[in-house]
Amino acid sequence: MSKKDPLTREQVRDINAWWRAANYLSACQLYLLDNPLLREPLRPEHLKRSIVGHWGTCPGQNFIYTHLNRAIVKYDLDMIYISGPGHGGNAIVAQDYLDGSYSEIYPNISQDTEGMKKLFKQFSFPGGIPSTASPETPGSINDGGELGYSLAHAFGAVMDNPDLIAACVVGDGEAETGPLATSWHSNKFLNPITDGAVLPILHLNGFKISNPSVFSRLTREETEMFFKGCGWEPRFVEGDDPEQMHQKMAAAMDWAIREIQRIQEYARSSGSVERPRWPMIVFRSPKGWTGPAEVDGKPSEGCWRSHQIPIPVWDGKPGRVEELETWLRSYHPEELFDQQGALIPRLQELAPKGDRRMGANPHANGGLLLRDLRTPDFREYGVAVPQPGAVEAQDTQVLGGYVRDLIKRNLKSRNFRVFGPDVTSSNQLSAMLQATGRRWTDQPEEEMNNHLDQDGRVMDAMLSEHMCQGWLEGYLLTGRHGFFTCYEAFTRIVDSMVAQHAKWLKVCRQLPWRQKIASLNYVLSSNVWQQDHNGYTHQDPGFLDHVANKKADVVRLYLPPDANCLLSCFDHCIKSRNYINVIVASKHPRPQWLTMDQAVKHCTQGIGIWQWASNDRGVEPDVIMACCGDTPTLETLAAVTILHHYLPQLKIRVVNVVDLMKLQPHTEHPHGLTDEDYDAIFTKDKPIIFAFHGYPTLVHELTYRRHNKNLHVRGYKEEGTITTPFDMRVQNDIDRFDLVIDTVMRLPQLGNSAAYLIQEMKDKLIEHHQYITTYGQDMPEIRNWAWNEGKGIYLD
Amino acid sequence: MSKKDPLTREQVRDINAWWRAANYLSACQLYLLDNPLLREPLRPEHLKRSIVGHWGTCPGQNFIYTHLNRAIVKYDLDMIYISGPGHGGNAIVAQDYLDGSYSEIYPNISQDTEGMKKLFKQFSFPGGIPSTASPETPGSINDGGELGYSLAHAFGAVMDNPDLIAACVVGDGEAETGPLATSWHSNKFLNPITDGAVLPILHLNGFKISNPSVFSRLTREETEMFFKGCGWEPRFVEGDDPEQMHQKMAAAMDWAIREIQRIQEYARSSGSVERPRWPMIVFRSPKGWTGPAEVDGKPSEGCWRSHQIPIPVWDGKPGRVEELETWLRSYHPEELFDQQGALIPRLQELAPKGDRRMGANPHANGGLLLRDLRTPDFREYGVAVPQPGAVEAQDTQVLGGYVRDLIKRNLKSRNFRVFGPDVTSSNQLSAMLQATGRRWTDQPEEEMNNHLDQDGRVMDAMLSEHMCQGWLEGYLLTGRHGFFTCYEAFTRIVDSMVAQHAKWLKVCRQLPWRQKIASLNYVLSSNVWQQDHNGYTHQDPGFLDHVANKKADVVRLYLPPDANCLLSCFDHCIKSRNYINVIVASKHPRPQWLTMDQAVKHCTQGIGIWQWASNDRGVEPDVIMACCGDTPTLETLAAVTILHHYLPQLKIRVVNVVDLMKLQPHTEHPHGLTDEDYDAIFTKDKPIIFAFHGYPTLVHELTYRRHNKNLHVRGYKEEGTITTPFDMRVQNDIDRFDLVIDTVMRLPQLGNSAAYLIQEMKDKLIEHHQYITTYGQDMPEIRNWAWNEGKGIYLD
Repeated sequence: MSKKDPLTREQVRDINAWWRAANYLSACQLYLLDNPLLREPLRPEHLKRSIVGHWGTCPGQNFIYTHLNRAIVKYDLDMIYISGPGHGGNAIVAQDYLDGSYSEIYPNISQDTEGMKKLFKQFSFPGGIPSTASPETPGSINDGGELGYSLAHAFGAVMDNPDLIAACVVGDGEAETGPLATSWHSNKFLNPITDGAVLPILHLNGFKISNPSVFSRLTREETEMFFKGCGWEPRFVEGDDPEQMHQKMAAAMDWAIREIQRIQEYARSSGSVERPRWPMIVFRSPKGWTGPAEVDGKPSEGCWRSHQIPIPVWDGKPGRVEELETWLRSYHPEELFDQQGALIPRLQELAPKGDRRMGANPHANGGLLLRDLRTPDFREYGVAVPQPGAVEAQDTQVLGGYVRDLIKRNLKSRNFRVFGPDVTSSNQLSAMLQATGRRWTDQPEEEMNNHLDQDGRVMDAMLSEHMCQGWLEGYLLTGRHGFFTCYEAFTRIVDSMVAQHAKWLKVCRQLPWRQKIASLNYVLSSNVWQQDHNGYTHQDPGFLDHVANKKADVVRLYLPPDANCLLSCFDHCIKSRNYINVIVASKHPRPQWLTMDQAVKHCTQGIGIWQWASNDRGVEPDVIMACCGDTPTLETLAAVTILHHYLPQLKIRVVNVVDLMKLQPHTEHPHGLTDEDYDAIFTKDKPIIFAFHGYPTLVHELTYRRHNKNLHVRGYKEEGTITTPFDMRVQNDIDRFDLVIDTVMRLPQLGNSAAYLIQEMKDKLIEHHQYITTYGQDMPEIRNWAWNEGKGIYLD
Repeated sequence: MSKKDPLTREQVRDINAWWRAANYLSACQLYLLDNPLLREPLRPEHLKRSIVGHWGTCPGQNFIYTHLNRAIVKYDLDMIYISGPGHGGNAIVAQDYLDGSYSEIYPNISQDTEGMKKLFKQFSFPGGIPSTASPETPGSINDGGELGYSLAHAFGAVMDNPDLIAACVVGDGEAETGPLATSWHSNKFLNPITDGAVLPILHLNGFKISNPSVFSRLTREETEMFFKGCGWEPRFVEGDDPEQMHQKMAAAMDWAIREIQRIQEYARSSGSVERPRWPMIVFRSPKGWTGPAEVDGKPSEGCWRSHQIPIPVWDGKPGRVEELETWLRSYHPEELFDQQGALIPRLQELAPKGDRRMGANPHANGGLLLRDLRTPDFREYGVAVPQPGAVEAQDTQVLGGYVRDLIKRNLKSRNFRVFGPDVTSSNQLSAMLQATGRRWTDQPEEEMNNHLDQDGRVMDAMLSEHMCQGWLEGYLLTGRHGFFTCYEAFTRIVDSMVAQHAKWLKVCRQLPWRQKIASLNYVLSSNVWQQDHNGYTHQDPGFLDHVANKKADVVRLYLPPDANCLLSCFDHCIKSRNYINVIVASKHPRPQWLTMDQAVKHCTQGIGIWQWASNDRGVEPDVIMACCGDTPTLETLAAVTILHHYLPQLKIRVVNVVDLMKLQPHTEHPHGLTDEDYDAIFTKDKPIIFAFHGYPTLVHELTYRRHNKNLHVRGYKEEGTITTPFDMRVQNDIDRFDLVIDTVMRLPQLGNSAAYLIQEMKDKLIEHHQYITTYGQDMPEIRNWAWNEGKGIYLD
């Protein structure tokens, strides 16, 4: 110990004792059913029969956590802990247990011998808790079961939380994932005045499951250059001697906290947002540190072999229990816990108090902090629709006006942001930029500055769906609001992230102490049905299918057919809690169908018969023409117009679906119609021609239990690329002409008049094909048909 | 021009003329229907009515491509071009047209005025070609419509191609994506002796759609440190003066090629594989370079405004056509093309010849180079199964033996690799490591070296599903073989990449000149039904649903119920072409059901009645017990055992499905059963209790057209986390006891005996629940039930 060392001998002793306690609890969670404090010799019956979980990451994370605690106390920090490496759940739980935050939430897991026994048993045990930093873990907002999102979550958490520091441990395995790799650049979008700070700690554990990690095998010079290139100032803490490492870590931590404070104080006093070089720590320690050095004569500590269970107690080899006991006793639990099993007072004093404990920090249970948004009256943004189809509008453009004012009203409360991968303009939501700018700390020369703003609410300056998703998740999980606007096809890039968030929400609903958070909302546009500058690669409506498979009490899917319906749906979603809401919307000029009053009613019901387009009043229809999505609605109404014209005696019922889950039985989804209500709309046996926005199979999947099996769904079938909007529909058989053909083919009673109409429709298709291959655009009459030719039927 | 400049005045003139020609062709593709060489004044009727496409990226890519051509000729290089930025299709097509490779493949697009007119018309036009480097583009293996995969594709392409250089242009927007961000580390896995080289060229265009790019706003020092940290040696080419830029680019290109040659020569003569510092180029040029400097008084060239269409000719403002004409004429097409419309001979001479042209390089049409694998006889690796359920084996472990020998037999031909995110051992495929090692150029100290090998065939050392997928795609697209082994849940991370590959294959099938490539094969294990060390986050069987939505002629889904079936399926897949084959397999000790002969027959049929488990011979059954996947098969057979025991009079038919697409009608999928065959197996109305590996909706989606609607599917419903294998099944109602309950409830004729059996089963469930919450593992008899209690029925 030298004079320059930041810690006294006593501090080292105590900090090391806390670390030993945390490591002891982490190891025992893997193995023990009983004899929690080793008050008697360890015997096989004290052990779980099935030993599952991970050890390798725990001691390093415990080391970091312990030193963060010291910094919290020393500097009175508001800090949360994000565990990136995955499967370190037993370490975080151990820390929560030591500082008391665990027992406050789970009184059965008390801070005594009995509670400790339960603590050990529940880990990776039926009815217990997972091995990750799962929702059950106090203080966690990042499960880590799927790797790669810790840093994005950390940045989301500190946005608009100027006093918060998110300490984010990045695993060196995790650091190899794509999403994590690009997360380092998030620092370009952090405002040191109005946002908090992220303190990344790269945990160089050396190994993954079986392989070394990439970052652990870079040269130190490369590592330093890499992080400096990403705009960080790294400091290295490396070694395996605990005493030296405590001193080094304390010094690095003091430096990092002071750097953060210096940067923030400078920015906040000077008003300058010039991008600072934020501190970070590179922490290299042996994997499975303090675990058995060798097992069966092969290295365990410091090696990939310590990844999961270092000592396989049930492999039948003699002496295993003794080996385990030696390891566990090496932490000297008798020095750490008193007779009742409580942490000794000297160590208790080390912990931060109350909400300062990372397991009790309210930011990590964001619902506690969630405040309602101030919302404008969405009805005031509606499009006047004198009669169905009489006017055109661009749905997302209309929504943009509402969002603009939503942003304005919540500028002061700083709890609402919009996220997207540079598609604000493309998705026609630019009106937002009248109220705020695009977040970027660096400012380009003025004439190149397209609404960049150092304090903007629109996070659309990074071309990464992963970042948008991760930031937004972090923002929501810490008690704020927002939505993600994306090209529909490219939400697939974050399929797995969305699935993980759905899992998180599902578990949270079962935990009464987890307060509800704002819903994860999507506004997806630039959808499959009109591509313009893009093509086949930009066509994928399957995000709906993906989300539909998730737990029914978490997911909601909306396909508003026009601007007024979009406003109504969006307003509903943005006020909701604990859901994943997917809205698929149109951005192109399209006829508008419903007045605002009608739209509100329609969206509230979620599904409805459009009487004004139907001619089956008072009788059972011959056919149901159903539609869901803006383009299918347009084509269905055009087809109905044609049918009314040619076959006025045919009784057609037009059904529009906004809330897709209405199709599922109410026993499967809370929004689902009862069979009675479904049959009242769709009949039990009349043909249903269903034009759907996405893959047809999704409608079949949702309706397979329904009585009416006479269902014929048209939707996207992976056809069409660069072509006209109408030709996209033709290539997927969802255009008006094909819908008419499809309909009359299901009605044998029509006889010759069907054959005539089919020929007419085929002629139209040929005529159109000739036109587009000559001129490259749709025949003008195609666009207008629905409401010019057929306006007679659009009486309300 | 200084003495040090690498190019003579004439060379600059000619290279610049080629670049002008390429830019001219790129711009005209956006706009022109006629008057291709501007032989007459431009008039509105010469223009497309709908102007769609992208300009911004084209001139920079044309500049790079032109200089690559020069290097190919100078150094006689075998080089392919990978266009990362997306939407630069018109540039690549222009280059292909100039060097003649386009007209060779598409004779109608001839190198004369008539052909040029067609070239312009077809771009982004109905029936024409997309705006990306789509499969229709000669020389492309990377569409770029979805951003982020160029560098991974480039690395996959050069693996085992020691003489190949993949020049990979990375867009600065693309560089912000997660997958691209981690791709820079691929250099750690490239062997300079046995692999080729990737030459990355980061294209700093400055802007994305509306925002600046992150990399364009790093300081030069940061950029340099970033790439050095990633192990590259960057050289900068920056500016906007064409003449200077030609000199700088030629110098940088000469340096890069000589560096590659120096590195390779050193490694190949010394035998040393120590990781070299490969060269790369950072190329900063104005976005939309040489386009209109300003439009409507606002900057266009060098700005985000040049991203798509610089001059909106149809916006109604006067003078637009003249503005466009001025721009197009600035390239002086009359100097570049002769009277017939052919490139003038002086410029023709600049192009590489024959296969050296990047549009004609056979590596970019990999099927041309594809050779069959030498395969062992998979039957020799089979498990001896004296009677169904009599022995246990770990399916993927058995497969590992076959793959080991497959690797051995193809070591010399160097055309087979295995890819995975560090799960070789976890997925029980370690036997492979007896034949080869894990690829890593750096070698750790020996005792820490877990099969690392500088020339290994197993690419599992990087924890990134994106890299595994991208590398494998690049490897397959250039005419080699491989498969991807992954945790089932985490294939969702690459959902969108798989979708893009499916789109690529679908289009290739329509292009006769695109030779068939080896299938993209998945071996997914560590699946939802047994988690052990993991939990809820590791449960997602939805990759099957995702792939099932893709074009039927591209996708195949296999769920072999035992090791012999797995061998048979794998052998089939690894020999197939142009498919995406998904195999979901078990890795845990499980009873084996079929002899090798039976397995081959069963897998060939894809679906079959298991007579040895059924008792309906000669009569119509009372109930069909269907199963698909290893765990559902085990539980179904156990349930059948119980039913036979308690209700021997009940006629049960057991159906096992290996090839999931058999369930679809043959009109929807080439593997689908006819209705007649389906009804022969499933009857038209008897209850079907279907135990399915994945989400139940997938079975409903595939079977909704079938006659028999009396279908009851059990599968994963997002329940269960850390718990025992059997409890996972219980929580999702797919266990034997729940299946028995489910079955007898569908059979009202059973009366009281059903009630009795239901009570028995419920008692069993309670008994099991008590056992696992006490001991943390399944009752021993659960595991053995299927074949001990019920062995009487497992007669073949």
